[in-house]
Amino acid sequence: MYFYGKKVLFLGAHPDDIELGCGALLARVAEQSDILCVTLSDNQDNPELGELMREHYESMDILGVPREAILVEKFQTRNFARDRQQILEYLYQLNSEHEPDIVFCHTEADIHQDHGVVTQEALRAFRGTSVLGFDVLRSSYGFFPNFLVEVTEDEAERKLEALAAYRTYADKYYFDPEIIRSTLVRHGALADRPYAEGFDILRIVGRFDQGLH
Amino acid sequence: MYFYGKKVLFLGAHPDDIELGCGALLARVAEQSDILCVTLSDNQDNPELGELMREHYESMDILGVPREAILVEKFQTRNFARDRQQILEYLYQLNSEHEPDIVFCHTEADIHQDHGVVTQEALRAFRGTSVLGFDVLRSSYGFFPNFLVEVTEDEAERKLEALAAYRTYADKYYFDPEIIRSTLVRHGALADRPYAEGFDILRIVGRFDQGLH
Amino acid sequence: MYFYGKKVLFLGAHPDDIELGCGALLARVAEQSDILCVTLSDNQDNPELGELMREHYESMDILGVPREAILVEKFQTRNFARDRQQILEYLYQLNSEHEPDIVFCHTEADIHQDHGVVTQEALRAFRGTSVLGFDVLRSSYGFFPNFLVEVTEDEAERKLEALAAYRTYADKYYFDPEIIRSTLVRHGALADRPYAEGFDILRIVGRFDQGLH
Amino acid sequence: MYFYGKKVLFLGAHPDDIELGCGALLARVAEQSDILCVTLSDNQDNPELGELMREHYESMDILGVPREAILVEKFQTRNFARDRQQILEYLYQLNSEHEPDIVFCHTEADIHQDHGVVTQEALRAFRGTSVLGFDVLRSSYGFFPNFLVEVTEDEAERKLEALAAYRTYADKYYFDPEIIRSTLVRHGALADRPYAEGFDILRIVGRFDQGLH
Amino acid sequence: MYFYGKKVLFLGAHPDDIELGCGALLARVAEQSDILCVTLSDNQDNPELGELMREHYESMDILGVPREAILVEKFQTRNFARDRQQILEYLYQLNSEHEPDIVFCHTEADIHQDHGVVTQEALRAFRGTSVLGFDVLRSSYGFFPNFLVEVTEDEAERKLEALAAYRTYADKYYFDPEIIRSTLVRHGALADRPYAEGFDILRIVGRFDQGLH
Amino acid sequence: MYFYGKKVLFLGAHPDDIELGCGALLARVAEQSDILCVTLSDNQDNPELGELMREHYESMDILGVPREAILVEKFQTRNFARDRQQILEYLYQLNSEHEPDIVFCHTEADIHQDHGVVTQEALRAFRGTSVLGFDVLRSSYGFFPNFLVEVTEDEAERKLEALAAYRTYADKYYFDPEIIRSTLVRHGALADRPYAEGFDILRIVGRFDQGLH
Repeated sequence: MYFYGKKVLFLGAHPDDIELGCGALLARVAEQSDILCVTLSDNQDNPELGELMREHYESMDILGVPREAILVEKFQTRNFARDRQQILEYLYQLNSEHEPDIVFCHTEADIHQDHGVVTQEALRAFRGTSVLGFDVLRSSYGFFPNFLVEVTEDEAERKLEALAAYRTYADKYYFDPEIIRSTLVRHGALADRPYAEGFDILRIVGRFDQGLH
Repeated sequence: MYFYGKKVLFLGAHPDDIELGCGALLARVAEQSDILCVTLSDNQDNPELGELMREHYESMDILGVPREAILVEKFQTRNFARDRQQILEYLYQLNSEHEPDIVFCHTEADIHQDHGVVTQEALRAFRGTSVLGFDVLRSSYGFFPNFLVEVTEDEAERKLEALAAYRTYADKYYFDPEIIRSTLVRHGALADRPYAEGFDILRIVGRFDQGLH
Repeated sequence: MYFYGKKVLFLGAHPDDIELGCGALLARVAEQSDILCVTLSDNQDNPELGELMREHYESMDILGVPREAILVEKFQTRNFARDRQQILEYLYQLNSEHEPDIVFCHTEADIHQDHGVVTQEALRAFRGTSVLGFDVLRSSYGFFPNFLVEVTEDEAERKLEALAAYRTYADKYYFDPEIIRSTLVRHGALADRPYAEGFDILRIVGRFDQGLH
Repeated sequence: MYFYGKKVLFLGAHPDDIELGCGALLARVAEQSDILCVTLSDNQDNPELGELMREHYESMDILGVPREAILVEKFQTRNFARDRQQILEYLYQLNSEHEPDIVFCHTEADIHQDHGVVTQEALRAFRGTSVLGFDVLRSSYGFFPNFLVEVTEDEAERKLEALAAYRTYADKYYFDPEIIRSTLVRHGALADRPYAEGFDILRIVGRFDQGLH
Repeated sequence: MYFYGKKVLFLGAHPDDIELGCGALLARVAEQSDILCVTLSDNQDNPELGELMREHYESMDILGVPREAILVEKFQTRNFARDRQQILEYLYQLNSEHEPDIVFCHTEADIHQDHGVVTQEALRAFRGTSVLGFDVLRSSYGFFPNFLVEVTEDEAERKLEALAAYRTYADKYYFDPEIIRSTLVRHGALADRPYAEGFDILRIVGRFDQGLH
Repeated sequence: MYFYGKKVLFLGAHPDDIELGCGALLARVAEQSDILCVTLSDNQDNPELGELMREHYESMDILGVPREAILVEKFQTRNFARDRQQILEYLYQLNSEHEPDIVFCHTEADIHQDHGVVTQEALRAFRGTSVLGFDVLRSSYGFFPNFLVEVTEDEAERKLEALAAYRTYADKYYFDPEIIRSTLVRHGALADRPYAEGFDILRIVGRFDQGLH
């Protein structure tokens, strides 16, 4: 099955979430569609993460995402629950300005205190739009990918390369290339494909059409 | 979100199932893709249903499905469970001959004794392929459409017209145009669209792409 | 199956929620039982909603609910999560004063930021009591009605009439009479009845009895 | 909440299932409604169960069920799956002759090879009717009672007395009075009542009404 | 199946939660493993609960838990949601200091406003560790025990004795010995054992091994 | 968490199922416990599989399973549904002769026509015993491992070596060492361990104890 959106929004809580969750697919979408990558917290409260923004831009660059397609906001890490109404209003505005056809954000199953807020508010803000959930290993809990998206070996490699740009996190097990690659292979195997990224479905509103007009 | 398949298979247990389950979408797909509509039982054991095949072809014709895209097999109504291995083998062959990109069949939630067999065997036979489940009111049980597909007013009207061709079932409440139309409007409202048909997701294997090549 | 409560509580977050969620059933219950309709926020912070309270009373009047059976409180819209402990204490008091046999409130599946709070606190406050969840289209998400309640054509019509009293919301798609009616017909069809309203079950504590004493 | 049916059908696979699953409620319903207790297999293939039918009638008598309200059929134990079409046709006929308002049968969660067949066919045969599922300990698996029905101490005692009539099964742990009683107390506690029997909901179609006419 | 942890953490929101949820198992574990019992709120804001801490220690003593294995913190009852980040940080520290092999805490299904917070934060804090959920009757909602743990009659008796130490709560129905005992018997019956305590599985990370080294 | 059984039964439909599903864990258990590996069909109806039995014994030998701990029966592949009552009776006998503490069999989520039968009958036959479900990629559907079991690198390697013994299936993608290894790494990552095999929980009946006596 082919699926397509002319405008695609990728939404993550922190720098690295989008790349971890669906970097290979992002590399593919960036070549075909008008994309926007929004990270809600820049994590700059944490002095140990001084290099993070630079790494995020480098990582996104490897995936083919130009600087102007990247937004990084200043919602406060670990306090998204407290600030959920402002996040919702921010997303409402994003929706009316960009009108995405598809939104990729955190899976509902994720247990990080900020990630679940992103998902809930995205479901509210992007009514009538398809919303697919990606998984991030460090806070994964009970995620099952019933929407498997094949990616090429080249796209898989670019995901690995993009994640290697996060030197700050080089020691984290969830940045381990073998684990990243194994997830791509495992999800590929579930789909009878060499590589795939897996999503769960928060809401699908589709039109049968190649989207040519 | 756009979705698309070059070859699309519609699979129902009895004449009328495909049209009831997704007639409006079928009218749309028939214009864009290479389709095949397979009904597993022709119901011709039942002497009261003598007109049924004629009505099925007429109904399909209204939806734009040519005769050569329609197969009606002779598996015995109400005994699909007994004959499930043969049905599976039939579907394996269908898969190797036609290699569909998307399969539409009965939802897993359906409680008719034959419908569930179709769904189970389709999941086995079409591994690595997207399978979406449609609902048929007379045996509906706990179906929730998390894959909503918008259709136009014209496609909705053609579904109503196609079902009217089943004069044999004119008195059945589940052929009542008001109920058919209400379902299209209700599913549309869930999707913020005027009309939609609803499916549940048995398996999605997708590729982000317009499918142009 | 007949079901009955001598004292029935309808609980909504905002004016219009109860009528949208179960106006037809409310018209029926109002004739047979001692009812109380509680709306937690009067929405009067919003200057564009100046007519809302008048419309709510008019709408309720059409459904046969007398003014003294209507309570509208001043919890702040969009901040129910912040104020959940006070809402819980309010509901505890409501329970000890009114001792309802059945409570109708928002379904757990609803994604509005205030609606879910009402449901959660109602489950805490009305322990040992049946609680049924209604759906409101603008924030509907994955709702499936496994408790279908038939209503008459007259009750269905009164729901439509009551909603027409909300002139403030006349342009909202979820007040569109065709959508309201289609939902009543669709849920009716699931129950083999001409019209029904659908609920999900948050908790049932029942007694087999006609409730005559 | 009160609930009521003028005609109530109790449906079990084998003698003892109905009494184990909902004997206390049956004792209550038998006093208020027109009931029918149908057991699909008489288990008379098994020579060790020669006393079983006598015990079943005695047990039912203790619960206040007259002989003419008891049907015991001859479907073959352990082969219900093979004979499911005949069982379905039997239930269709039962439905058209008796037109029950409520059907109590085995929960869908039950793992006995015959019990699940009864449930599936009942859902098909009694469309448009409320169907509630009871649990039987020996084949219980993942049952959760979201429909709790309070019973009196006297009704609880009569259930214990009725089960004691099954002398054939006196050594079975699932006939142990302490276990039977503990289940009644535990389910009562979940409902804030002294005693309750628990059901899950297979389908509810209700009317708000005392059922007086 | 045997299961075992060298270091076991029991985590409850309020004094009495651990004993109510799994007192019999705690009596058993206390004899075999290095345990720690942590209660997050001492409930000492409430002047009617002046005896509670004494009763908690007495109750724990009956179960064989020495004073030094008991921690009672001062998070504020009913405000755990507000204070969730501090609770999470407290649990992170607990994890790094004690490194438990198994954590017992409230089931996710519990509807008390504080209990759910404990569960969510425990899942975050104890990543890579087995977490099992216990049920507490006063806020039980939809709990199903798919991890049944047998206990001896003596352990069951000690649970009853320990709960009797809570004279402050002597009138609460959920301290009623018959209800406590019925729950032990009912869960035992589900497991084909005389007595069991029931848990649901929040996460299992196991090693097949007797844990001798 | 440690878990342990003195007698462990591994139950698969066809030669290769046990090794694919949990070969690494089997290598570990074989060193510590009294094991029995039962395959219900020898697949010898299929002339292309003439080497299969030899390969099965060789594969099991690599995992440390002696010939006398291996049973291969002659139930007919693809017809387990038809023969389910005989399979059940076979399993009853297995249970009374071997009395396993833990049973590993196919996950309930598996869609192969034979695998589901094994699971259902195992749940019936081994009442009161823990039953864990393993996944087999070729018929995997919606499996999520909530019981993760860590294995060592050596055990992971032996699984790969054992599967290489199936030269008959050398071309099947689900025997591809990279896919097998990726699954071990991915499941390990979910558990914060280098390697793990994943199971779902069909039933757990446990005792807190090291199982020394």
